[in-house]
Amino acid sequence: MNALYLTNRTLSFRTDLPTPQPAAGEALIRVRLAGICATDLEMVRGYYPFDGIPGHEFVGEVVRADDAPQWEGRRVVGEINTTCGTCAQCQNGRPTHCENRTVLGILGRDGAFAEYLTLPIANLHAVPDEVSDEHAVFTEPLAAALEIQQQVHVHPSDRVLVVGAGRLGQLIAWTLALTGCDLAVVARHEPQRTLLAKRGIHTLAEEEVPHWGMDVVVEATGSPTGFALAKYAVRPRGVMVLKSTYAGELRLDVSRLVVDEVTVVGSRCGPFAPALRHLHKGLIDPSDLIATRYPLEKGLEAFQKAAQPGVLKVLLHR
Amino acid sequence: MNALYLTNRTLSFRTDLPTPQPAAGEALIRVRLAGICATDLEMVRGYYPFDGIPGHEFVGEVVRADDAPQWEGRRVVGEINTTCGTCAQCQNGRPTHCENRTVLGILGRDGAFAEYLTLPIANLHAVPDEVSDEHAVFTEPLAAALEIQQQVHVHPSDRVLVVGAGRLGQLIAWTLALTGCDLAVVARHEPQRTLLAKRGIHTLAEEEVPHWGMDVVVEATGSPTGFALAKYAVRPRGVMVLKSTYAGELRLDVSRLVVDEVTVVGSRCGPFAPALRHLHKGLIDPSDLIATRYPLEKGLEAFQKAAQPGVLKVLLHR
Repeated sequence: MNALYLTNRTLSFRTDLPTPQPAAGEALIRVRLAGICATDLEMVRGYYPFDGIPGHEFVGEVVRADDAPQWEGRRVVGEINTTCGTCAQCQNGRPTHCENRTVLGILGRDGAFAEYLTLPIANLHAVPDEVSDEHAVFTEPLAAALEIQQQVHVHPSDRVLVVGAGRLGQLIAWTLALTGCDLAVVARHEPQRTLLAKRGIHTLAEEEVPHWGMDVVVEATGSPTGFALAKYAVRPRGVMVLKSTYAGELRLDVSRLVVDEVTVVGSRCGPFAPALRHLHKGLIDPSDLIATRYPLEKGLEAFQKAAQPGVLKVLLHR
Repeated sequence: MNALYLTNRTLSFRTDLPTPQPAAGEALIRVRLAGICATDLEMVRGYYPFDGIPGHEFVGEVVRADDAPQWEGRRVVGEINTTCGTCAQCQNGRPTHCENRTVLGILGRDGAFAEYLTLPIANLHAVPDEVSDEHAVFTEPLAAALEIQQQVHVHPSDRVLVVGAGRLGQLIAWTLALTGCDLAVVARHEPQRTLLAKRGIHTLAEEEVPHWGMDVVVEATGSPTGFALAKYAVRPRGVMVLKSTYAGELRLDVSRLVVDEVTVVGSRCGPFAPALRHLHKGLIDPSDLIATRYPLEKGLEAFQKAAQPGVLKVLLHR
């Protein structure tokens, strides 16, 4: 089959890869649409080690599911962490932290920038007919945005700041806006600000951010300057949510976190079911986030496009 | 009056200082006993800037309180943050984070290593007759230990690790043991381990700490190695409490906090009332923590003693 393949930090388009064979309990899925995310770009830059087919945001259709044939022919999205079910994390309700996990297109499992992928049937969520492929492909990043509210109680009266308004930052801001909170976003690029303004979301220039002015701050840039701005903005005993990984180590004045009694919450993968509910109800319409689409065989071009500053979601189709 | 005085990182014993004059709403307090804490040592080492009389752990007696004469003659301990009552922090229930605060012996206000100090009457707590001076002088650090449970819900079923078993680490461990949690402490020095064993608290060598084995970890060393061990021990979605300040900046692999979705909570000053209740009921008996006592005029010797590794609480008396 055709796929993008990453090895030694070099991404190539290959036509000679075998179609994956589903193991017991797994489904074979034909990928309909896949999205390029910051993690994919970081893997190509070598910040994160992975050899194989990348890609973890997808919508597809089940072509084979021997152990659950009722899934065959259904349009699906899939949770990206495969779990053992027996480790301490799985048995204590934290399956996304499974000690023996593989992660689709990220860790020990080929991903979605291919004609086909395999995933355990237990990871699948059926996509309602009313939700288009172009919306469904955002289920995974939308779930990651909702993980913030899974972890932190955002009160309707809270003053909330999102630092960064790229692909994930937009979804974070849009979902937080639904809480009724007093929301502001630091967005560097004009098109990012336009997308927020369209939804009535207030933006701030970096120099307008009030010191100690926010109850909750979400850091979605993955940059040391973003972290510093978030720390500047959060009030004493406030919450900073770290929604991006950082290249290398960060130098932090940890004593300020102690003196101001700040809570810092790391946040990663989130719940698919509420993400699909948001898409189904039309509460989140991600169409505006699509920058452009490329066929899989032009995947290398697509990656170049996605790496340009300010470019939103680049999709790969069959 | 006599006092220890810090200027340009040099501590001296002086006999020529004026007795402080209480402002409106303040009391003049004769210090009976004061304790040397890690923060005091750091100020002398120059890690923290302060010029004036240090000292913030004390028990004393009110000699003058014009606005509330019923306090005169009473034995008291005092909250160390003085507040304005009008800033955003004060008006939102976070007086210890007052934007205009002074802090006894730490920030803009002379402290307790003196014959007399002044504090607002609103900061005072009467010491019950049954609580000795030697116990009451631990009210402030005991309150700081209890701040952990003020901020984090420690469940009786939680596996909890305290890294560090010095002056504050001991009080933290003793108060956490009262929750019924499954507690272990990393203690480097044999006398520290003896104090814990006496209270039935389990200790671990650093190499015995289980990876991802703890629901809550309290970092009480203020060292990068202590932070690293705490991060190693905390489970995914677990809580790390930072109870010490750190000299300078710390280099952190922040991405691991994101991937493991760890919550980091900075923790500083705590509630005096429950600390006094613990002392009054005898649930916490800090006598064992007293290493030795010096008269105020031998304060420089006392500081040298307190700075030696493994030495517990050094007290200054009149």
